[in-house]
Amino acid sequence: MIMEMGAIGAHSGTGVWRTVYSPEWVEANDLYARWLEDAGLTVSRDAVGNVWGKLEGTAGGASIVSGSHIDTQCPGGRYDGTLGALSALIALRVLKAQFGQPKRTLEAVSLCEEEGSRFPTANFWGSRAITGAIQQGDADNTLGFDGTSIAQAMRDVGLDPSIVASAQRHDIESFVELHIEQGPILEHADLPVAVVSAITGLRHYRVKLTGEQNHAGAFPMDLRRDPMAGFLEIGSGVINTAHRLGRPAVTTIGRAEVFPNGAAVVPREVHFTIDVRHPDPKQGEELYKLHEKLMREVASRRGLEIEWEIGIDKVPCLSDPSLVATFRDAAADQGVPTLTMASGAGHDTQQMAKIAKTVMIFVRSEKGRSHTPEEFSTVDDIVAGIKVLAAGLHKLAY
Amino acid sequence: MIMEMGAIGAHSGTGVWRTVYSPEWVEANDLYARWLEDAGLTVSRDAVGNVWGKLEGTAGGASIVSGSHIDTQCPGGRYDGTLGALSALIALRVLKAQFGQPKRTLEAVSLCEEEGSRFPTANFWGSRAITGAIQQGDADNTLGFDGTSIAQAMRDVGLDPSIVASAQRHDIESFVELHIEQGPILEHADLPVAVVSAITGLRHYRVKLTGEQNHAGAFPMDLRRDPMAGFLEIGSGVINTAHRLGRPAVTTIGRAEVFPNGAAVVPREVHFTIDVRHPDPKQGEELYKLHEKLMREVASRRGLEIEWEIGIDKVPCLSDPSLVATFRDAAADQGVPTLTMASGAGHDTQQMAKIAKTVMIFVRSEKGRSHTPEEFSTVDDIVAGIKVLAAGLHKLAY
Repeated sequence: MIMEMGAIGAHSGTGVWRTVYSPEWVEANDLYARWLEDAGLTVSRDAVGNVWGKLEGTAGGASIVSGSHIDTQCPGGRYDGTLGALSALIALRVLKAQFGQPKRTLEAVSLCEEEGSRFPTANFWGSRAITGAIQQGDADNTLGFDGTSIAQAMRDVGLDPSIVASAQRHDIESFVELHIEQGPILEHADLPVAVVSAITGLRHYRVKLTGEQNHAGAFPMDLRRDPMAGFLEIGSGVINTAHRLGRPAVTTIGRAEVFPNGAAVVPREVHFTIDVRHPDPKQGEELYKLHEKLMREVASRRGLEIEWEIGIDKVPCLSDPSLVATFRDAAADQGVPTLTMASGAGHDTQQMAKIAKTVMIFVRSEKGRSHTPEEFSTVDDIVAGIKVLAAGLHKLAY
Repeated sequence: MIMEMGAIGAHSGTGVWRTVYSPEWVEANDLYARWLEDAGLTVSRDAVGNVWGKLEGTAGGASIVSGSHIDTQCPGGRYDGTLGALSALIALRVLKAQFGQPKRTLEAVSLCEEEGSRFPTANFWGSRAITGAIQQGDADNTLGFDGTSIAQAMRDVGLDPSIVASAQRHDIESFVELHIEQGPILEHADLPVAVVSAITGLRHYRVKLTGEQNHAGAFPMDLRRDPMAGFLEIGSGVINTAHRLGRPAVTTIGRAEVFPNGAAVVPREVHFTIDVRHPDPKQGEELYKLHEKLMREVASRRGLEIEWEIGIDKVPCLSDPSLVATFRDAAADQGVPTLTMASGAGHDTQQMAKIAKTVMIFVRSEKGRSHTPEEFSTVDDIVAGIKVLAAGLHKLAY
């Protein structure tokens, strides 16, 4: 099924290029819907194009849902997102075949959009529609890299952007998302599967350091107000702070720009970003404070002006402790050794956590690769992940 | 004279934009030639357009020459270069008026090009022509920012690029260049004038650090091979090394580029430059070794690949000790307090040192500014500099 789905939008050998509302996306969702039907599930599609397969429970009530997104990066691989949608389908098919009708209603879902790879501000479009987080007019104002609005893209595939609000659900009790890890932690721990205890909190700082532009030869070191020296010291410092704090703290300097950027010129300005992540709310705040204190101290000592803006600023999303326990027990029952870890990347689960109890299951990624055609997980690890998912859903629904 | 010369190519208020072989350059050299004539000097122009004013000595023999370049940055200020050409002219005018014909021949010169501001690889065009460092064909291969060759630009102002070699001189014994300091050392020492003991040695490293691109959230700090972390550590380290070594050592990171340069991505590559300068040959070599050792150590410890190329690589240009002594004595005679210091910037004097004994005189720059319309030296400081120049030339020639 991974190979069949990966053939739709195949790109760069083992890659997949399948952005939301593209012809490949339509074809992939049609295949997903057919597989849901083949599994004996009741298929429906909502206003944004999420595809649902329902296995009605005898007791009725709110649903237990599993799934992930069907769209990819440009190109991404065969596993990121898709594996979670397929795993939910397989788990429900197997549960129905083996145990029949559950007490609680189970649903599998292919979420329409998570990556923002066609519309850069559309991330979590599918899950945001489900939680009611998309406002009237958002579809017209969400523009793609080519200038097309997501509203127009929806109309082009037969969806009506004026009824996006109808996708909202009020009857989901739990959401379980299986996903590739996208990092090397399971590989280094030599384990196939993790139960995710939290999705990391995240803050982006956009920092501007201003000093005095001078001649690289004629200005002595002790008289310089060099924003590059300040950047180098701040950057080294924040990276060392996160490293010393240890896992799961991470701090990344991914972006830097130097003005005027000449080899023989002490720069006037350095702009850079700091990406800071921690899944524990208190420790995350502490990390932010340490970084800000260092920035102020270095700038002041070096006679530099410093300004920063905070871009993305997300609090951690904690998994439901009882769901974590349930899926850890399920793994133990199945003889699948697991790790309990935090996710350093964002997922649809963060959105779903606004309306439901949530938990995630991670499957080992080779070399921690993702968002690339090279991303890979073995069938053995995937099967282990699906066993944990299915066994956990069984505990919840039967 | 500074104001009248600065009006030719006036730009941005107090700035001057006067590139080699431009209409402004022609006008400035014509004015310089007229002033030489007014001073009673014998005027000539050589094949590249250097303008010479000669005060023949009774003893004949090799000349004692003073001058500097007449071209500017885009825009530069009124002082960089021009002040040295004017000071030579004024010194010779005053010496002739006050002391008549010297024993040794004295010459003032306006050098045609030093900045490389129109033809980026043409630096020192005027002084290189005098030392015979320009090869047949160089003029055709030296292209301007607009694609024009310097050969064509020469023809456009009536010069013949095929006879550049004729500008070579074999009869210059000493070359003395007065120039603004371009740094803040005299200002901080509260002194008007310096005698320059050496022009710094200089090396440019172009460094490429390669690591592994990864997700900023999903990859733990301890498993990263992060070229940004390596750059930050190396950059901080080399700057600290030069700072601790103290004046006149300087190390500058002026240029950095990050790939792919995304806020949430551990970079794959960081490219950067290191500009390292020291006027003492042995201490300069030691500084290079310290920097290279640190680069190798950090790259190895962090699991990064490192490559570097050496771009500019110039050994220090030591002033002639007897000329340094002569001009220090001259300053003392004139009651001008001086500092003896190295130049951290390059000058035509470096070229002239290939064929003559050399020394430089620096005049205090306000806030150490240069290559900008804001560069400024007071008339008092300039007069002090010209006194030192004239008194030194008097010692040498009369």
